[in-house]
Amino acid sequence: MQESSTKPYLLRALHEWCTDNGYTPHIVVTIDENTVVPRAHIQDGQITLNVGHLATNGLRIGNDYIEFQARFGGITEDIFVPIAAVSAIYARETGAGMGFEVVESAPYAESDQPAQASSSSSETKKSDDAKPSHLSIVK
Amino acid sequence: MQESSTKPYLLRALHEWCTDNGYTPHIVVTIDENTVVPRAHIQDGQITLNVGHLATNGLRIGNDYIEFQARFGGITEDIFVPIAAVSAIYARETGAGMGFEVVESAPYAESDQPAQASSSSSETKKSDDAKPSHLSIVK
Repeated sequence: MQESSTKPYLLRALHEWCTDNGYTPHIVVTIDENTVVPRAHIQDGQITLNVGHLATNGLRIGNDYIEFQARFGGITEDIFVPIAAVSAIYARETGAGMGFEVVESAPYAESDQPAQASSSSSETKKSDDAKPSHLSIVK
Repeated sequence: MQESSTKPYLLRALHEWCTDNGYTPHIVVTIDENTVVPRAHIQDGQITLNVGHLATNGLRIGNDYIEFQARFGGITEDIFVPIAAVSAIYARETGAGMGFEVVESAPYAESDQPAQASSSSSETKKSDDAKPSHLSIVK
């Protein structure tokens, strides 16, 4: 199995952080051929979307796509955004958030499901035979 | 309400990412007066802990503390690690992960609860009146 991207996990995490702090999470999306958004709201090849629970219906941040319904000028639109096309998530109220590399996206597949954390337990041991790498400091 | 740290959200996210990919998540902890770990396993003021589901019992990554039971040399120990004291989480198999700033921790409080994402819906509008900031690029 190919390693999956950490990006959808981090997007879900920061969306939850925004929500818990009463902030309004927004994403910045670089438009590509798999992005389904209202064309009139694209600026310079990008769109900024409010992905707060109060602004969306049926929001699902899956491992490959973010999908939801939202109203633009009174019209309900179905939005599909590849995770690969998201360049940032941030709290509108403070600007705090995280930026991401935009990479080539794959077409939408119905089978895209959000990951569920599994839970089990057993015994442990200390291990220090590996060193952290590819690390970025987050405050 | 004071803004909460994104750190526990990111730790939960990367723990889930490790688990979903079959990796074994480890955390690096800088020991402080609120850290409860087996003293014999501390090296240079730090301890590296396997926090995989197979190595822990009752693992809970709360907003202020990570707590679980684990076995060290055949003895089950209760572990309490302040989120503030965690300097990294990474997959043992690849070293991929994320580093964090270590800050001063607060004593353990029973009321520390993991955050739950709430869910609701309504209408939306596009907003681009705020710019992302404090961003770090994550691949």
